[in-house]
Amino acid sequence: MSSPPIDFYFDYLSGYAYFAWFKVLRLCQERKLDLRIQPVLFAGLLNHWGQLGPAEIPPKKEFVYKVGCRYGALHGIPFNPPKYHPFNPLHALRVSLREVSGDQQARVVDAIWKAGWASGRDIGDPKELEDILEKAGIDGSSLMQKTRSPEIKEILRLGTEQAIQKGVFGIPTVIVRQELFWGDDQFEYIGLYLDGKDPLDRERLREMLARPRAVDCRR
Amino acid sequence: MSSPPIDFYFDYLSGYAYFAWFKVLRLCQERKLDLRIQPVLFAGLLNHWGQLGPAEIPPKKEFVYKVGCRYGALHGIPFNPPKYHPFNPLHALRVSLREVSGDQQARVVDAIWKAGWASGRDIGDPKELEDILEKAGIDGSSLMQKTRSPEIKEILRLGTEQAIQKGVFGIPTVIVRQELFWGDDQFEYIGLYLDGKDPLDRERLREMLARPRAVDCRR
Repeated sequence: MSSPPIDFYFDYLSGYAYFAWFKVLRLCQERKLDLRIQPVLFAGLLNHWGQLGPAEIPPKKEFVYKVGCRYGALHGIPFNPPKYHPFNPLHALRVSLREVSGDQQARVVDAIWKAGWASGRDIGDPKELEDILEKAGIDGSSLMQKTRSPEIKEILRLGTEQAIQKGVFGIPTVIVRQELFWGDDQFEYIGLYLDGKDPLDRERLREMLARPRAVDCRR
Repeated sequence: MSSPPIDFYFDYLSGYAYFAWFKVLRLCQERKLDLRIQPVLFAGLLNHWGQLGPAEIPPKKEFVYKVGCRYGALHGIPFNPPKYHPFNPLHALRVSLREVSGDQQARVVDAIWKAGWASGRDIGDPKELEDILEKAGIDGSSLMQKTRSPEIKEILRLGTEQAIQKGVFGIPTVIVRQELFWGDDQFEYIGLYLDGKDPLDRERLREMLARPRAVDCRR
């Protein structure tokens, strides 16, 4: 089989997706795979599946920040979350669409991740985003201008809708071919999958998933 | 500081908690720590924090089963989930209380985990549980009898309530002193914490957690 592209679904609200960003970059670089950057609105996923984000559950927010601090310290990755959190990620997500940033897409996304989660800047604010992009040598002013069109807003909405159709329920998510991997801890499995060494027995899995729900039965 | 006890919070509904059971046993054995087994009602946590369990989100249920299959295959741990899932865990949790099983508690819990998640038995059913315990050389009949008292039902309810007060929002959770670790992937950090080598900078964490919410501000 030819090398598949790697779809990376994320929202800048997630610190786990920040760490996954570096992992997915390395994966694609090492294996010479195409990275398809897929910004999605986390709130759209949560609303669809009826969930709350970690930031809405105080002890969970504290815990995920601790994990971020520990992981960052052990792996030498700066962890300094956005000035405000949660924040409105719409502007950052829109400017990260290929339809806005074109071949600068990966540079735009990289600049926003680092500004937000390594430098603690306010990546919810369009003015800040413009400055962040400019400092990264990107024409932030013209890119931010583009994000204001109704077409671009619709593309982000549709992208989120399509992700939901593919079963994306959380972020970060990587999809390779049709295989979905949720979380920043899945790269070992993704590697095995790409090597044709996925330890998953799909026949047994199908049987397990076909087992009935008892709680429904008894209601 | 003297060796702290390890509190392990779980519900039999979680396959991640099944894997964590073996890890927490090894941790306590290797470091000669007291394991305090804390059965809690996952549904109680979810209701309190306004969340849904993975089994309520179809692509998430499929994904967590895949992770279980892969993890089990790579680590040589049988993974064969309960005959019905989700199921009613009340009987299994009640018989796992120290107030019911006394010094046989760890053996009871071990037998139920393995029957449910390694052998695919119906651990929601009291008759099955009795049989599972009997086969493990435990007086299942008399233990299951005890679970029927209102006092025991209340102890499980209260234990869940107390866990929530301590900030338990998911399972498995390990608490050491007052430090909460959620998930089966935290044992490296727990080890560092116990060694006095927690890489967490608590001063910086406090500052990060004090940063305001932008979404609230703007509403």
